[in-house]
Amino acid sequence: MGDNAAGAAPGAHMFALVITTLDWFGVAVFAVTGALVASRKQMDIFGFALLATVTGIGGGSLRDLLLGQAPVFWVKEPLYVGICVAVAVVVFFTAHIPESRYRLLMWLDAVGLAFFCVVGAGKGLVAGPYIAVVMAVITASFGGIIRDVIGGESPFLLRKEIYVTAALAGAVTFVGGVGIGIPDTVAAIAGFVVCLVIRGLGLVYGLSLPTYRARPGRTAEELKRIGL
Amino acid sequence: MGDNAAGAAPGAHMFALVITTLDWFGVAVFAVTGALVASRKQMDIFGFALLATVTGIGGGSLRDLLLGQAPVFWVKEPLYVGICVAVAVVVFFTAHIPESRYRLLMWLDAVGLAFFCVVGAGKGLVAGPYIAVVMAVITASFGGIIRDVIGGESPFLLRKEIYVTAALAGAVTFVGGVGIGIPDTVAAIAGFVVCLVIRGLGLVYGLSLPTYRARPGRTAEELKRIGL
Amino acid sequence: MGDNAAGAAPGAHMFALVITTLDWFGVAVFAVTGALVASRKQMDIFGFALLATVTGIGGGSLRDLLLGQAPVFWVKEPLYVGICVAVAVVVFFTAHIPESRYRLLMWLDAVGLAFFCVVGAGKGLVAGPYIAVVMAVITASFGGIIRDVIGGESPFLLRKEIYVTAALAGAVTFVGGVGIGIPDTVAAIAGFVVCLVIRGLGLVYGLSLPTYRARPGRTAEELKRIGL
Repeated sequence: MGDNAAGAAPGAHMFALVITTLDWFGVAVFAVTGALVASRKQMDIFGFALLATVTGIGGGSLRDLLLGQAPVFWVKEPLYVGICVAVAVVVFFTAHIPESRYRLLMWLDAVGLAFFCVVGAGKGLVAGPYIAVVMAVITASFGGIIRDVIGGESPFLLRKEIYVTAALAGAVTFVGGVGIGIPDTVAAIAGFVVCLVIRGLGLVYGLSLPTYRARPGRTAEELKRIGL
Repeated sequence: MGDNAAGAAPGAHMFALVITTLDWFGVAVFAVTGALVASRKQMDIFGFALLATVTGIGGGSLRDLLLGQAPVFWVKEPLYVGICVAVAVVVFFTAHIPESRYRLLMWLDAVGLAFFCVVGAGKGLVAGPYIAVVMAVITASFGGIIRDVIGGESPFLLRKEIYVTAALAGAVTFVGGVGIGIPDTVAAIAGFVVCLVIRGLGLVYGLSLPTYRARPGRTAEELKRIGL
Repeated sequence: MGDNAAGAAPGAHMFALVITTLDWFGVAVFAVTGALVASRKQMDIFGFALLATVTGIGGGSLRDLLLGQAPVFWVKEPLYVGICVAVAVVVFFTAHIPESRYRLLMWLDAVGLAFFCVVGAGKGLVAGPYIAVVMAVITASFGGIIRDVIGGESPFLLRKEIYVTAALAGAVTFVGGVGIGIPDTVAAIAGFVVCLVIRGLGLVYGLSLPTYRARPGRTAEELKRIGL
């Protein structure tokens, strides 16, 4: 994956290694969340494997496609899929252990979000800092969106606490850090921590930014009543 | 974006300019509809920005990917994303003003549909007239589909009034017009007007083509009762 | 599509022909399932055409994009879209004939799954046997997923009977057969039959693998009650 590094400057190889390492963790963590949704829907073991794989590699696949880097990363390195399948098998036999799968799901989703916002930004840097931030937010969010849409869950994105904001803050921290000359690895860790802390505060304290409060949307029934 | 023009004939540059201009309008209008859905779901301002951006650039991203023109348009020209974010901020502070957001949403969706059916057809022309029409219908529809799936709305596509028909008519008008030698710009405007008028008639008068009426699908409960 | 064949060995042309033939059948069968969903939702004829087309070509488009083979197959060969539209028109006028559209939908989905698991594996072979199997399962499943998400149906994937397992077994049969030197055409037919028989047994006898049974997920209301 070294060809995505920010050039041939000294440290570029190290940087590519850091991003690749974070990518492996992000894929594995999102695969766990996919398998947890499969357990909530009582699928069989191959259903676990499919939902874990699609969740683990979905965000990164979209990122690669949008950046024009097809075939996507897991076609070049099939071991990513192997990790997702292994994760699915482990979760199939252990999902009864945690007291609340949903709470675990939310926290692992937060960790995956933090990994993927840094990885998305790192791979997006080839297209400039603005695109790097956008790519970070879109691909970090889409791992969970694909999981929730296929698994029939209400999207995390629609929950009230801070979510997109955390991905954005992590991406800006990382891209800004690289921009002002902080060592890549330090910037990557800082971006990861910022994203995870902000999302974690949201989960623990129900923290949220001011939302649009004027009035919620009318439901389908109310709309029908007024003739829309 | 000039490389998408229909050749190096005189007027090709003008044509590319028209298509690009319509593209900007289409992205902006669909971004407004995404932000309006975010307001219906009472998201925070970064949720607005994400849903506006994904809705604004989703249809065009799919079009570029299918045509093999990755990296997609907004990776090459990040200002598209800037427009979506700016639109989201404006809607966040003004969405309480219109009397019915849902009505506004429907009408702006109609305008976006009209812009994108012409743009989709224009960019698809490189692959021949049939593909141009198909690309127009698919990409014009998918802006709204992505918004509705992510935002948890019932898809506009499933509403009874004319929708796909309008996009198809607009695309055929534009591609047919170009085919019989009408100036590109005139054909583009004609396609836009045809699509908007047909969809508008559908919205105002509840106009619909004859639908499949024999019988609706059984619900999940009815299917379970008969053992499926 | 001959460029996807497994090399220039004798028989490569024959193999490409077999895969292409299966591809046409798979697209047509999935297009029927898309049109049947359109009839359940009482769409108009152009709604039928769009849902049939998207369902028919969706899985293959995703496969081509992930493999880096854009523009996708139907941009190079628009007749695929023509088949989907023709299928939609026929279903529009005949969907009242079968006694149970939903049962027909399930069986045709099974046939389409069998076609696409072999085609997906065949086209994925360029990237090695593991990726071939993964590509088979993902693309065979996504035809139905796209149809169900856009058409507002509960995804087939979430039903309890064997589904992913059938696609996996068919793909492994085909890829394994090719690997041990069985003639390509025989391996393709074997893979098709294995997938269809396994999914068919699931439908007829409600066969399922042991699912994750410990406990289903809490509903949104239950989660809210315990403060998540």
